[in-house]
Amino acid sequence: MRYSVFAGGKRLRPTLTLAAADAVVRRRDGPPSGDELSPAIGVAIPAACAIELIHTYSLIHDDLPAMDNDTLRRGRPTLHVLYGDGIAILAGDGLHAAAFTLLATEPAGDDAEVAARKLRVVRAIGEAAGPRGMVGGQAIDLQAGGQAPTHPVTLDANGLRAMHARKTGALIRASAVCGAVMTGSDADTVAAIDRYAVDVGLAFQIIDDILDVEGDVASLGKSTGKDAAAAKPTYPALYGVERSRVLAGDCLARAREVLADARLTDGWLGAIAEWVVTRKN
Amino acid sequence: MRYSVFAGGKRLRPTLTLAAADAVVRRRDGPPSGDELSPAIGVAIPAACAIELIHTYSLIHDDLPAMDNDTLRRGRPTLHVLYGDGIAILAGDGLHAAAFTLLATEPAGDDAEVAARKLRVVRAIGEAAGPRGMVGGQAIDLQAGGQAPTHPVTLDANGLRAMHARKTGALIRASAVCGAVMTGSDADTVAAIDRYAVDVGLAFQIIDDILDVEGDVASLGKSTGKDAAAAKPTYPALYGVERSRVLAGDCLARAREVLADARLTDGWLGAIAEWVVTRKN
Repeated sequence: MRYSVFAGGKRLRPTLTLAAADAVVRRRDGPPSGDELSPAIGVAIPAACAIELIHTYSLIHDDLPAMDNDTLRRGRPTLHVLYGDGIAILAGDGLHAAAFTLLATEPAGDDAEVAARKLRVVRAIGEAAGPRGMVGGQAIDLQAGGQAPTHPVTLDANGLRAMHARKTGALIRASAVCGAVMTGSDADTVAAIDRYAVDVGLAFQIIDDILDVEGDVASLGKSTGKDAAAAKPTYPALYGVERSRVLAGDCLARAREVLADARLTDGWLGAIAEWVVTRKN
Repeated sequence: MRYSVFAGGKRLRPTLTLAAADAVVRRRDGPPSGDELSPAIGVAIPAACAIELIHTYSLIHDDLPAMDNDTLRRGRPTLHVLYGDGIAILAGDGLHAAAFTLLATEPAGDDAEVAARKLRVVRAIGEAAGPRGMVGGQAIDLQAGGQAPTHPVTLDANGLRAMHARKTGALIRASAVCGAVMTGSDADTVAAIDRYAVDVGLAFQIIDDILDVEGDVASLGKSTGKDAAAAKPTYPALYGVERSRVLAGDCLARAREVLADARLTDGWLGAIAEWVVTRKN
C-alpha cells in the first residue's frame, strides 16, 4: 500500500478537492493572508486523501495482468511485478477499505453538521467509485478491449464518452464536489463545481489518450502506445489528434465559463483546468 | 455482482447483525408479538446487507487464481471461471464500493443520532474489512501458503489464531457489533456483543478447518482438502480433529456465558453460536 500511494503521481484528484474547498472559502471570506491555502479548507483534507487512496487502489487493480497488464507506473515497476498478483489485489482492497474508514473517522468530533457532510461524501465517493462509476467504466473498457470474452462490446463515439464519464469522470467529479460539500457549500455551488469538473474530467481523458500516442515513457512514467496495441477506442483514433485537441480546448472554455458564472475564479480551479489541457505528462 | 451475491450461502454475517439488533431490542422492549423479528431492528438491515456485500466481494477475490484458485463456491463455478479474472476483480471492487454507498445512504433521513450511528458503522466495517482486519489476514494467509514469495512467513499456533482473527474474525465481530450500534446500544452492551462474536468467529474458523478435512463437496458446495494440498496451517493440522472440536466447544461455552451475563439470551444469538459449532456445511 505504501509503495503505490507514495510513488508520487500528479495528485490531480486531491488537488481538485482542496482547490474546490479553497475557492468556496475565498468567495465567502476573501483571500487568505499570505500565499497559503485558507485554514478553513482543512475540513476537506480527509476527503482529498481518501480519494487519492481510491484512485491508487484503482491503478493497482487496472495494472494487473487480468486487466491492462501494465508493468510501469509513475516511473517504477507496478506493484504486482514486485509482490505478485495476490498481494497487489489485496493492497488495492486494503486502500479501498482504508479510504472509507478515513472518511468516517476524520474530521473527528460530534458536530452534527459535519457528520451529515461526511455521510454525503462517503455516498458521493462510493457512487463515483462503484458499479455506476469507475468500476463500471473499467468493466466496459475491458469489454471493449476484448478482455471480457463472454460480453464483448464495440464503442462508438458516444459509447467512448460514456465509458470515460464513468471510468475517470465520476471520481474526478466527486473529487471537486467533496471539497465543496465539506466546506458547507449550498446546492447551486455544488452543482457549479460539479459542472466544472465534468469538463475537467473529459479534457483530462482526451489529453490522456493523446499522450498515449505522442508522449514518451520517460516523462509519463508509464508505458505508451498501449491503447493502439490493445485496439482500444480513443479520442485520437476516433477524431484524430488535432480535432481531439480542439475538443479538449472546448472543455477548458466551458469550465472557465462555469467558474465565472459562479464567482469561483479566485483560487486555483482555473489554473488546474488549464494545466489539464496543456500538460505533457 | 448479482451472480455471486444471489448464489445463496449461509448468510451468517447478516444473520448475526439482525440477531444482535433483535437481542438488544428484546431486552429493552420484551419479545415481539408473534414469531417475527421485531420491527425496531429494521434500522440494522442496511448494515446487514452491506456486510454480506463485503463478504461476497472477499470470496470473489479470494477465489481468484492469484489467491486460493478455487473453481467451486456455493455449489457453482466461481465468478472468474465464468467471466474471467478481470471482470471478477471488478465485480468484487464494485460490491465493496456498493457496501459503503449503502451504509451512507440507508436508513435515510436527517436524524442526527442515526447519522452518528451510520458513521460508526462505516468506520467499524471499514476497519474490519481493511488492512488491520480481513485484507491483512488474507495477506498473511497468502504469505503462509507460499503465494507471496517475496515475504514468506511460517505460522505457529499463535500466528494461526492471529491470522484468523483478522481474516474472518474481524468481519464477524463487526457484523454483530453493527447490529448493536444501529439499535442504539450502550457501550457495555456493544462490548458484550463483541466478546460473544470473538468466540463465534473463532469457533466458525475451527469448524471450517475441520470441514475442509472431513466434509464432502456436495454438502459444502466448495472444494475440500484445499488446506492440506496447499500445506496451510489449520487447527486440525496443529491440534488434531478431536482437540479442535473441544476448542470449538470451549468457544460456545464462553459465548453463552457472555450472553447470560449481559442478559441477551432471549433471541437467536445462542442458537447461532450452537449452529456454528455443530454445522455440517
